[in-house]
Amino acid sequence: MSTTVRPSAATEVEQWLTRFGAALQAGDAAAAADLFATESYWRDLVAFTWNIRTVEGRDGVTDMLEAALPHIRPHGWHTTEEPTSADGVTEAWIGFETAVGRGGGHLRLIDGKAWTLLTALEELKGHEETLGFRRPKGVRHGANPERETWLENRQREAEELGFSAQPYAVIVGGGQGGIALGARLRQLGVPAIIVERNARPGDSWRNRYKSLCLHDPVWYDHLPYIKFPANWPVFSPKDKVADWLEMYTRVMELNYWGSTEAKHARYDEVAGEWELVVERDGSELTLRPQQLVIATGMSGRPHTPRFPGADVFAGDQHHSSRHPGPDAYRGKRAVVIGSNNSAHDICAALWEHGADVTMVQRSSTHVVRSDTLMDIALGDLYSEQAVAAGVTTEKADMIFASLPYRIMAGLQIPVYEQIRERDADFYARLEAAGFQHDWGEDGSGLFMKYLRRASGYYIDVGASELVASGEVKLQAGQVDHLTRDAVVMADGTELPADLVVYATGYESMNGAVADLISQEVADRVGKVWGLGSGTTKDPGPWEGEQRNMWKPTQQPGLWFHGGNLHQSRHYSLYLALQLKARAEGIDTPVYGLQEVHHTH
Amino acid sequence: MSTTVRPSAATEVEQWLTRFGAALQAGDAAAAADLFATESYWRDLVAFTWNIRTVEGRDGVTDMLEAALPHIRPHGWHTTEEPTSADGVTEAWIGFETAVGRGGGHLRLIDGKAWTLLTALEELKGHEETLGFRRPKGVRHGANPERETWLENRQREAEELGFSAQPYAVIVGGGQGGIALGARLRQLGVPAIIVERNARPGDSWRNRYKSLCLHDPVWYDHLPYIKFPANWPVFSPKDKVADWLEMYTRVMELNYWGSTEAKHARYDEVAGEWELVVERDGSELTLRPQQLVIATGMSGRPHTPRFPGADVFAGDQHHSSRHPGPDAYRGKRAVVIGSNNSAHDICAALWEHGADVTMVQRSSTHVVRSDTLMDIALGDLYSEQAVAAGVTTEKADMIFASLPYRIMAGLQIPVYEQIRERDADFYARLEAAGFQHDWGEDGSGLFMKYLRRASGYYIDVGASELVASGEVKLQAGQVDHLTRDAVVMADGTELPADLVVYATGYESMNGAVADLISQEVADRVGKVWGLGSGTTKDPGPWEGEQRNMWKPTQQPGLWFHGGNLHQSRHYSLYLALQLKARAEGIDTPVYGLQEVHHTH
Repeated sequence: MSTTVRPSAATEVEQWLTRFGAALQAGDAAAAADLFATESYWRDLVAFTWNIRTVEGRDGVTDMLEAALPHIRPHGWHTTEEPTSADGVTEAWIGFETAVGRGGGHLRLIDGKAWTLLTALEELKGHEETLGFRRPKGVRHGANPERETWLENRQREAEELGFSAQPYAVIVGGGQGGIALGARLRQLGVPAIIVERNARPGDSWRNRYKSLCLHDPVWYDHLPYIKFPANWPVFSPKDKVADWLEMYTRVMELNYWGSTEAKHARYDEVAGEWELVVERDGSELTLRPQQLVIATGMSGRPHTPRFPGADVFAGDQHHSSRHPGPDAYRGKRAVVIGSNNSAHDICAALWEHGADVTMVQRSSTHVVRSDTLMDIALGDLYSEQAVAAGVTTEKADMIFASLPYRIMAGLQIPVYEQIRERDADFYARLEAAGFQHDWGEDGSGLFMKYLRRASGYYIDVGASELVASGEVKLQAGQVDHLTRDAVVMADGTELPADLVVYATGYESMNGAVADLISQEVADRVGKVWGLGSGTTKDPGPWEGEQRNMWKPTQQPGLWFHGGNLHQSRHYSLYLALQLKARAEGIDTPVYGLQEVHHTH
Repeated sequence: MSTTVRPSAATEVEQWLTRFGAALQAGDAAAAADLFATESYWRDLVAFTWNIRTVEGRDGVTDMLEAALPHIRPHGWHTTEEPTSADGVTEAWIGFETAVGRGGGHLRLIDGKAWTLLTALEELKGHEETLGFRRPKGVRHGANPERETWLENRQREAEELGFSAQPYAVIVGGGQGGIALGARLRQLGVPAIIVERNARPGDSWRNRYKSLCLHDPVWYDHLPYIKFPANWPVFSPKDKVADWLEMYTRVMELNYWGSTEAKHARYDEVAGEWELVVERDGSELTLRPQQLVIATGMSGRPHTPRFPGADVFAGDQHHSSRHPGPDAYRGKRAVVIGSNNSAHDICAALWEHGADVTMVQRSSTHVVRSDTLMDIALGDLYSEQAVAAGVTTEKADMIFASLPYRIMAGLQIPVYEQIRERDADFYARLEAAGFQHDWGEDGSGLFMKYLRRASGYYIDVGASELVASGEVKLQAGQVDHLTRDAVVMADGTELPADLVVYATGYESMNGAVADLISQEVADRVGKVWGLGSGTTKDPGPWEGEQRNMWKPTQQPGLWFHGGNLHQSRHYSLYLALQLKARAEGIDTPVYGLQEVHHTH
């Protein structure tokens, strides 16, 4: 990001905003589009499109504005801090209003024309969150006969919601994603229930292998409203995250139904509501929300390959999500199938506890050392230094959001070239040990792999050295079958095993729709996640945004929420505002509803 | 506080600090004292005195410095932000170092001489808290055989501490005070256990009358490390505070022993440690901490007068701390004895639920309307406006701490004159109803009453209007006795009653020492709380600081912690630093150890 203040930056932005505002006011889409460069991107988060959309070039801008201007009525464009210029790019943080809301965003000008514009809805007029100066008083002063206390009110709500009163929204999945969205909806006054199979918030972390820690640093991981405190570790151990989620759910007063399974959902077109059958503590009941949010997560449904002979294998075998940790496997022979994050973590923990460990690498994997990732890829946005320099987590989220996905890969490539150089030794040793390493098909590295396919990488916190040194044995190739006591590879190599761990990833969130609703609805909605980059596991055509995430889908009343902690924190705001607008009967014409090219 | 920047302020402060620093460096106490005005105050929080002390005038400064300089070795005096001048007073925020620590403080100059100086220890060198840039990494990257996870470590600590390993400190009382101190000690790495009679953190709030809300606003109420979020109500309902305390205790990883009663403590002079017998979940065990902190609170032991006839009264009777709330008393006749905060709250709630309510006022009471208190007395320091103006809660605490108690009453009088004028109507109506109202003996109002005697006032959140209008009946005078169904006043007036609530306050924390340790130790330590102002319930001589609070007492290894949320937040730091220094074997010569003039 630029830091130098050039006197003309403010003037340049001021002039641009004035002309832009005037064109929009006049309803002149073409004149507004003319203020954009030939190569240009306007990313809108719900403010103009009631959608999450990036339009490209003057034609894209014109088309979007012609649809949006009549009802959005944008006005009041202004800067919110001093614009800056560097390397020929002028940058500005901006604010604006629409007919129904207030928004913020970011602008990059090159030669006086917009290269990138981000517009993001921040709040709905008349439905502002009760925060800070607007915080609730907590007690009505004065004498009020039949006053209900806070506790009585909470207890009554818990008794009524889902029974005599229906929630407007139900969130299926009470991990960090569901919880973050639940908190946003709570603050916006949208009645919602979070439905979660596990008993307590945080259990989805507690139940995983015991050595699990977040691979993303604390500044990246905050939930909305309550930040992790200054004493919080950089990389949170899973049980500590779990405790935080449990406490967050309580103090944010979420209606969290633990030990509850979502069994079946059907959309009633006539009533415009869902019939959602849930089993709560063993008894079935039907919820009738108008909006249904799938937040079962990227790691919701385990993907377990069915190898011939798995039924005769006499040892322990389980998916990584069910792996209990290493304690029972001291002195045993463990084969871990897979070479991404979970596979590495599990191999390292087994080795640390005295198991004989082999990792089966079936395809190439991208590895980045955690420290390097922090220093080079994340540190400018998410670090103690960034916070000290005024880049709060919220600001970092907006900076990140201001970069259109189309150009992001190009911006990431030099970052990973730098990483390759810094850790050349490390990669050489890894490859010398036979590890198949890649940098993504276009060399754009970890984050693009995540956005495109959410797999294919490991953030190294120590396991790679075990692989490089041979402490964890490496076996390349495909598994052919299992025997009573071994994994047999396609080339005939036999790996004796007391334990087989399938660190083989998860199925698409689309699968959750097929399970919960129907295959027909799953197909109608199509693939969830990915950008349409045309790389492995992310087929084209280019979408410009992540498929089906946090925005309207082809199925009325059906939404997807999730992603990593950064995404579920930031995008929960836009999903919550979309739901709130609908709950309030605000007109929400969607521009550019997702087309479906792939069903899973 | 002043806000105007005068060019000379910086120079004036710079010159003073240079001369001051040079005198201290030279060990010249008299030269340093000469930089103080004839009327002057130096308040020290642990940095120079290993005590909480205010010395007065040049003689006071000289005496303290002669004792302190040889081992404290202060240096590195500097300003931490731009000094300001207004109304002839120049103010500066300062920093400095001592031999063992780093400190901060505040300076007020008049005509180039110090009028007030605050010095406060902030951290011990080599024992800095692991916050922000120093936060823990959370996971040791690399492969470590026999690695212990965070959860395993916490579980092992819980199994060992108090059994195979002894805590360095035990805090008796797990309300907000004990919890705040426990968090500080945890962060400083001092092994500590909090012992609490109730099962869960927050129960001391949960168990109180159901309409209870904090009468202090949220900005005043933060705990250390984790602030209440922006959606938190201004006046927290008791059960919401309770949930927060429970959450806080968990995520701050405190060793909190609920359902545990401290039965008896004895100091072993030879071993230099306490033998503290506790009953935990029904079984007794002995803890051997070196430091014992009494944090049972200002509202720990109920004070219940024993009126003749109480044994024949056939209705319900209980102390306010045991009052269950109004639900069972609809249509009943309630007599509430007392006219302070609890009495008013309970009267109002009973009236709201259809009881016939009489308040018995036995002595005059000071009342301030909550909104007025916020606007006039607190708003500059603790409000959303203050935060927006850069006065964080931490800074507000330091501003407050910078005002010596000797001059505080004088500064408070005009505030309450303003309140009297603003709410003249209100007070006239209240007095017309027969309510005996006072402003404190010297007109210095609520906060001085709190600091001197911690009683004698009501922050009005609505009950006063019920008193003024006669909805809650008022009966002045002393209670003579109870009959089967009435309270009888000294003048013969009979108040028919189905319920008698004794809103008659609490006993001194000194009583907790007599109960837990011995009357001998209680007498040796003397009165706890109060300033020695010579006003009712706060006999002289003048002490200059609150008796026995947060500082060494005449009993080695015995400490008192508590006060309102502001005090227990701020002073927990200084108490924690004193304990940490002792735990680390740092020399802590105490200047001006509290003399004992009153035993309770």
